[in-house]
Amino acid sequence: MAQKPSIPKGTRDFLPLDYARRSYVLDIIRARFERYGFLPIETPAMEKSSSLQGKYGEEGDKLMFNVLNSGEKVKKADIAALQESKLGRFTQSISEKALRYDLTVPFARFVVQHQNELTFPFKRYQIQSVWRADRPQRGRFQEFTQCDADIVGPLSPILEAECIQLFDDVFDGLSLKGATIRINHRDILAGIAQYLGEPDRIIDFTVALDKLDKIGSTGVYEELKSKGFKSDSMSKLEPLLSLSGAIEEQLNSLEKLLLSQPQAQAGIAHLRKVLSFVSPLQVTKLTFDLTLARGLSYYTGIIFEIAPPEEVTMGSIGAGGRYDNLTELFGLSGMNGLGVSFGLDRLCLVLEALNLYPEDLNQPIDVIVLNFGDSFIQHLLPHISKLRKAGIRLMVYPTDHKLKKQLQYANQLLTQHVILFGEEEQAKGIVAVKNMKLGTTKEVRLSDFNLESLFL
Amino acid sequence: MAQKPSIPKGTRDFLPLDYARRSYVLDIIRARFERYGFLPIETPAMEKSSSLQGKYGEEGDKLMFNVLNSGEKVKKADIAALQESKLGRFTQSISEKALRYDLTVPFARFVVQHQNELTFPFKRYQIQSVWRADRPQRGRFQEFTQCDADIVGPLSPILEAECIQLFDDVFDGLSLKGATIRINHRDILAGIAQYLGEPDRIIDFTVALDKLDKIGSTGVYEELKSKGFKSDSMSKLEPLLSLSGAIEEQLNSLEKLLLSQPQAQAGIAHLRKVLSFVSPLQVTKLTFDLTLARGLSYYTGIIFEIAPPEEVTMGSIGAGGRYDNLTELFGLSGMNGLGVSFGLDRLCLVLEALNLYPEDLNQPIDVIVLNFGDSFIQHLLPHISKLRKAGIRLMVYPTDHKLKKQLQYANQLLTQHVILFGEEEQAKGIVAVKNMKLGTTKEVRLSDFNLESLFL
Repeated sequence: MAQKPSIPKGTRDFLPLDYARRSYVLDIIRARFERYGFLPIETPAMEKSSSLQGKYGEEGDKLMFNVLNSGEKVKKADIAALQESKLGRFTQSISEKALRYDLTVPFARFVVQHQNELTFPFKRYQIQSVWRADRPQRGRFQEFTQCDADIVGPLSPILEAECIQLFDDVFDGLSLKGATIRINHRDILAGIAQYLGEPDRIIDFTVALDKLDKIGSTGVYEELKSKGFKSDSMSKLEPLLSLSGAIEEQLNSLEKLLLSQPQAQAGIAHLRKVLSFVSPLQVTKLTFDLTLARGLSYYTGIIFEIAPPEEVTMGSIGAGGRYDNLTELFGLSGMNGLGVSFGLDRLCLVLEALNLYPEDLNQPIDVIVLNFGDSFIQHLLPHISKLRKAGIRLMVYPTDHKLKKQLQYANQLLTQHVILFGEEEQAKGIVAVKNMKLGTTKEVRLSDFNLESLFL
Repeated sequence: MAQKPSIPKGTRDFLPLDYARRSYVLDIIRARFERYGFLPIETPAMEKSSSLQGKYGEEGDKLMFNVLNSGEKVKKADIAALQESKLGRFTQSISEKALRYDLTVPFARFVVQHQNELTFPFKRYQIQSVWRADRPQRGRFQEFTQCDADIVGPLSPILEAECIQLFDDVFDGLSLKGATIRINHRDILAGIAQYLGEPDRIIDFTVALDKLDKIGSTGVYEELKSKGFKSDSMSKLEPLLSLSGAIEEQLNSLEKLLLSQPQAQAGIAHLRKVLSFVSPLQVTKLTFDLTLARGLSYYTGIIFEIAPPEEVTMGSIGAGGRYDNLTELFGLSGMNGLGVSFGLDRLCLVLEALNLYPEDLNQPIDVIVLNFGDSFIQHLLPHISKLRKAGIRLMVYPTDHKLKKQLQYANQLLTQHVILFGEEEQAKGIVAVKNMKLGTTKEVRLSDFNLESLFL
């Protein structure tokens, strides 16, 4: 095989530094999930196709990675279906399993399957890979990691406030300042659709509204007009699109504008209730955003979306909201949910752009013991064991290569300390500890040689 | 959908307690890998089929999970191949990717692909799922986790000694006493085959020898005889099978018996060299085991296998050894390797059987704040934030359900502390902290309420 091997497009190898950076972010997210009382679960990479098919719309079915039945089972291939271009039927004839497409549907399946083993309200978090046959592009991969936390069971505005707090806590943990938590409520959007005299066209309305950022208010009016919204609707909409000030002021203005709309009033009251449980935020800004209509086919109450700090051009780095009947697809009704999700890949890109990774992530080894020959290493063995027991990441250079080569190796790994112990040191009863960064060397008596002597 | 949903056979959901137990083991393995200077990497779940096919023998190709090409690409199905029962060719026509079957081949691919970005000796560890379409049974799954640490590049007996030490350190971390690290060396087995006058039949010989445990020495002799080994070979073999004593004694006896065999002497000398770098072991026993011929088609030097403590009936819980030309399959020659691997699933079963999991793994929440109504929760918000910032895993009960129900919930989650703050407490300016395990309650002044007051 002359050609260098490679991996499928849209997938990635994580080298040690990549891994360390992702772990850094994941560890912070995981710890915050746990502090808010979420319990970890994992589900298998492969689900039965019957659990996933039809759950994500036609597009989702197309982008799902199906796993071929193994062994003789492929003989059951429905050739007629293939010849008639019924690709779905053909696929079903040779595939019974598919790779996880998101974490929500497997979670719904999990709740129904294990309902008798769980205690409700059930707060779960799940951090796992998902796979989509999407066309790869910057920041979009065929295998990527989702970080979801959801609650099913009795819900309350307290939990919605905690979602806001959780976003703030995670970003605080990452030292990421200036992200914006945008919130909205489906009842407010429904109330506005009623106010515009188009109560049944909330989707058309929000699809247009969602583009405000890109096409401006004139563009939104054009689009609504082209969809048959009346022009007096437009004049009603105008003041709604120019809300400003702090979130309480925005809600006050909105309340006045929509006095005649009970559903909108209910949504506003609900958001106020949520806000009453939010403690002062540390690093994020909280805003009300009427144009936030994310996943409206899905969310039934509050909606969250997190925009990265303004200096980074990137889509949302987190999202969430309230949804009803999570588990109905699997035959269990009455289970409502509330969830948040962090986009790991984008978060990592943001941290990189803002240079927020701790510098020591690129130093995977604390100490390298240089090798001057077997007997010297043997002499140091008890000390080496002790350092490792204390948690020091220590590598013994495996061979007695030339000192220059060994030092070069330590430099390449950005190791901060090397230990030298050869004939001279043994004669003096010391070890030499060299700080590679400062270029300084100190001598430590072998009998005093321990953790502190390394780093002090 | 009336039927309860389920997952594919041989796969598993991990509920919070399962997850906590696996994490406990994985965190200890991961920390030890890092203390020995191994760097983490990850590779994608899907590899190109061309990277995996043919690397694991015919059986491996059959047990591999192939991923169906997405979208229109399945139209290229080679129907003729299917009709001729050429299943391999048919599969190739509709599938270009397969799920990772182990971590070794992807690692070899990784080393070749990234050779210019890596520094050698390269010590990597990798903890990821692999998938095999094996028939599921107790302790064998279609998706399972491998924990591998390997070194490529300049090797030395020091590193082999470190493998032994690493096994001991991991088991020490898990408080698992009494596992046995069995070692052997391919050169010794080759030397014995020569000694028996059958230098080319090392595999036949070791396959028989491997059964000593099950069929006894008589059984081994029978099998060798049936394969055409001469009967004077048998009498030569007998003393070799009855080595006893500490590992040094075993090697001394072996050395005398095989004086005429230079290759065996080299193997013995090599093991002695390795032993010279092993510090006293904490929790494991080290033995020489002539019958250990694991993966002899693969290992070219030292071989390791770990037997669980005798009171648990189970196969090996770890293994490893020295192999040559890891990366030759991907066109890079001269790269030798040394690796160890832990079997996570079996290790977990052993810990469970021996009751070695820390008890607090089943307590995912430290504190539940009981809910006596919105205003009380609002009053506590600053304290709740402070506790969470300090790392306490704290849940606020979301609704003001009856106290009995809330306490029941705390009991079901095995939560140790609940916080009560209602009318009475507010009037007195205190919070009540109830220890659910001891049944005791103490009152803490709100102004003194902090981390210590919870747990002291």
